[in-house]
Amino acid sequence: MDDRKLLASIRTLIGEAETADDCSMFDLGDGKILVASTDMLHETTDFPKGMTEFEMGWMSVAVTLSDIASTGAAPSQVLVAVGLDSPERFYPFMEGAVSCAETFGAKVAGGDIDSHKELTAVTTAFGIVDKSVYCRRSGALAGDFVCVTGIPGRAQAALDGHDEFRQFLLTPNPQVFEGQKIAQAGASSMMDVSDGVVISLYDIADASSVGIILDGTSFPLFEESGYAKTCFLYGGGDFGLLFTASGDVLSRLDIDYSVIGRVVEGDSVILDGKILPRKGYAHVWGDA
Amino acid sequence: MDDRKLLASIRTLIGEAETADDCSMFDLGDGKILVASTDMLHETTDFPKGMTEFEMGWMSVAVTLSDIASTGAAPSQVLVAVGLDSPERFYPFMEGAVSCAETFGAKVAGGDIDSHKELTAVTTAFGIVDKSVYCRRSGALAGDFVCVTGIPGRAQAALDGHDEFRQFLLTPNPQVFEGQKIAQAGASSMMDVSDGVVISLYDIADASSVGIILDGTSFPLFEESGYAKTCFLYGGGDFGLLFTASGDVLSRLDIDYSVIGRVVEGDSVILDGKILPRKGYAHVWGDA
Repeated sequence: MDDRKLLASIRTLIGEAETADDCSMFDLGDGKILVASTDMLHETTDFPKGMTEFEMGWMSVAVTLSDIASTGAAPSQVLVAVGLDSPERFYPFMEGAVSCAETFGAKVAGGDIDSHKELTAVTTAFGIVDKSVYCRRSGALAGDFVCVTGIPGRAQAALDGHDEFRQFLLTPNPQVFEGQKIAQAGASSMMDVSDGVVISLYDIADASSVGIILDGTSFPLFEESGYAKTCFLYGGGDFGLLFTASGDVLSRLDIDYSVIGRVVEGDSVILDGKILPRKGYAHVWGDA
Repeated sequence: MDDRKLLASIRTLIGEAETADDCSMFDLGDGKILVASTDMLHETTDFPKGMTEFEMGWMSVAVTLSDIASTGAAPSQVLVAVGLDSPERFYPFMEGAVSCAETFGAKVAGGDIDSHKELTAVTTAFGIVDKSVYCRRSGALAGDFVCVTGIPGRAQAALDGHDEFRQFLLTPNPQVFEGQKIAQAGASSMMDVSDGVVISLYDIADASSVGIILDGTSFPLFEESGYAKTCFLYGGGDFGLLFTASGDVLSRLDIDYSVIGRVVEGDSVILDGKILPRKGYAHVWGDA
């Protein structure tokens, strides 16, 4: 059992639309959408060994701002709930949390403090976006270009011991400003790649009822190697944004990004003529 | 060290106003305030032994809706992040969460699923309230009446083994509809009593720079006894709302409540001529 299957099990309880995106949405009624996202991280599973409390606080906020970014919203406020095994860890953790929030234009506006056997953090962020540009996983159209920001794979490489990439793993930068520009330009779908590029492409493909054909010669890699390509496709922990857009939209977009494929009719993610496995980061209990 | 002291330690980081209430606030700019609150609960500390997963899910949402209620807001959406030791617990937990949310007019709109050694839940809720009636802990004025809804103390009594009150402990009803009526009538301050009546009165007194004199003959008790009075004053886990209001406001208020005292100039909570200890529920690490 993994978390994607578990989520599917409650579709009947909370609804199909409510489980389809990383952010919830609430129509504020004046052409604005309120988006919100929440993420749980805890020490043994989510924080690489040797991480400082500042870095844990930064990462906890960054993962949630990345979800907000993928809708095109400007993040407004962040709430931070922390379960602490020892109280001394709180201040440096919150320094990291506040620093990340402020770097990306948000404010830590509240939270909760609990005692816990293991340092556990849940950050919730919300932001506001114009309904006319609000992005979701659904909306990709056959013919659109498939694009990604940044160089996915470096966080995985850092996990594998490539210390030169540790900053991408430990104090990742959510693509908050890029997300707003992508949405304003008119992208047809968007999500972040934090669970891995391929599995995220499947999420877009599923939500949009399309297929995707990747062009392996155009991947932004941290080095020219099969290893870097594997990290790009299946590594987790990076904070790039995947999005789909027409050529017309791309001509209006003034950020750095790479075109890595095209949206097609179908239901698979294909590279070099082969259907890629639906594989990426997942929380697993027992046998998946 | 307890969580109130720990919270005070980060006032310089996130600001005085941001640590002063159970809810954060965000001005939506059209006479509306968005309020949000987040709460962490986990099995060993927060869920009484023998609780079902349904009850855990219900309680997790109820604590957060109670914070929203204390502002006078109508809760809109709830996000639920769950750390699970075993995946089978998820569905009944979410049934409880969804059931509580829907009972009080909110919708579970998203969340996060994680694996964890101990069942850990963080619920975040937001709601919208007219700026003109939005309630906080601050605002109580000398001369106001001090009021409470419900019969605080029953949750504590249930914890002590009074099984006839277990429903108040395990599936508490946040006073969501009462909170909206209290705010609309024009209460000067409000908060919930979930950490205990006396410590919550101190929170109102501190935030409002006032004192409070209680009338021990008017407490709504579950039985006439010193034990019930102690549960009323210091027990945690109940979901009544404390509020302060002028007689004029009370004359407009058509809900059940008890007047338990008056706001005065000063800085203490006083009963029978004695200053009450600042005592209630707190998370504690080591020596408090």
